[in-house]
Amino acid sequence: MRAAVHRAVQQLLAEQPAEALTLPVVAGRAGVHPTTLYRRWGSVAELLGDVATSRFSGDIVVPDTGSLREDLERWVSDVATDLADPDVLALMRAAVGSGPEGGCACTADRHAQLAAILDRERSRGGSAPEVERAADALLGPLYYRAVFTNDPPQAGWARELVDALLG
Amino acid sequence: MRAAVHRAVQQLLAEQPAEALTLPVVAGRAGVHPTTLYRRWGSVAELLGDVATSRFSGDIVVPDTGSLREDLERWVSDVATDLADPDVLALMRAAVGSGPEGGCACTADRHAQLAAILDRERSRGGSAPEVERAADALLGPLYYRAVFTNDPPQAGWARELVDALLG
Repeated sequence: MRAAVHRAVQQLLAEQPAEALTLPVVAGRAGVHPTTLYRRWGSVAELLGDVATSRFSGDIVVPDTGSLREDLERWVSDVATDLADPDVLALMRAAVGSGPEGGCACTADRHAQLAAILDRERSRGGSAPEVERAADALLGPLYYRAVFTNDPPQAGWARELVDALLG
Repeated sequence: MRAAVHRAVQQLLAEQPAEALTLPVVAGRAGVHPTTLYRRWGSVAELLGDVATSRFSGDIVVPDTGSLREDLERWVSDVATDLADPDVLALMRAAVGSGPEGGCACTADRHAQLAAILDRERSRGGSAPEVERAADALLGPLYYRAVFTNDPPQAGWARELVDALLG
């Protein structure tokens, strides 16, 4: 049931403006009774947070090349590729628009992956920037461009961003 | 009439989840007939784009201290202060959630102001980074933190961001 509802949300957001997304509309598309959705999620905001957390977790494999620079370049390139997909952007915008927790639902796992890449470099005996600084330098421009400009990020941009962070 | 409607939108977003915002609800709060809103804006997305463009244009004064670093620090500090206001964040999230143009409505004037600061430095004979690089380094982290984390930007953070850009 959960998978059918998540799929319905993503389909509907790819087809129509987010303002048309209501629990009864999702229920109709997923073929479940609206009260089931109200019981389980309570609001569009909660449902979108759940869909975003699920969609943006574990979908990108953390690279392990033995080099911090190479790991970051591959990972940033994968995040950028994901953010260039119009359906991904539609889900992300809708999650952000649904309330204060929607944005975090989109990026919590990205942040954790970045921390893991940096920690591994330290455990190898190398030095790595603090995760907050790395997030500002890498995720900041990626998500800013994806959401606030008409110039979505591109995979080839990864090297430039990593160079700006690591020097 | 436009001012009353804009005020109604901002009040409603400060009070309740964005998903409750509909043209009839805005009309009721503003004391205008719903058909007037449908005729003028057509959709919640268009109305939110208009409110965001108006709210996020001309509200911040571009500093002119004679020093690029000082200008950028003051300006970034003002943008960060604005982004720390929960009502501003609520409007911004709703604008982003309403569709692809909502995010640009929030940042187009910020981008133009940044370009003006950099151009002025060049016209003084100094050198300044490209506006895209400056936007990535300054607006990227500010808007990323504001929308995608629970750690909103703070005015005191301006110096650090400008240092990372200018060295």
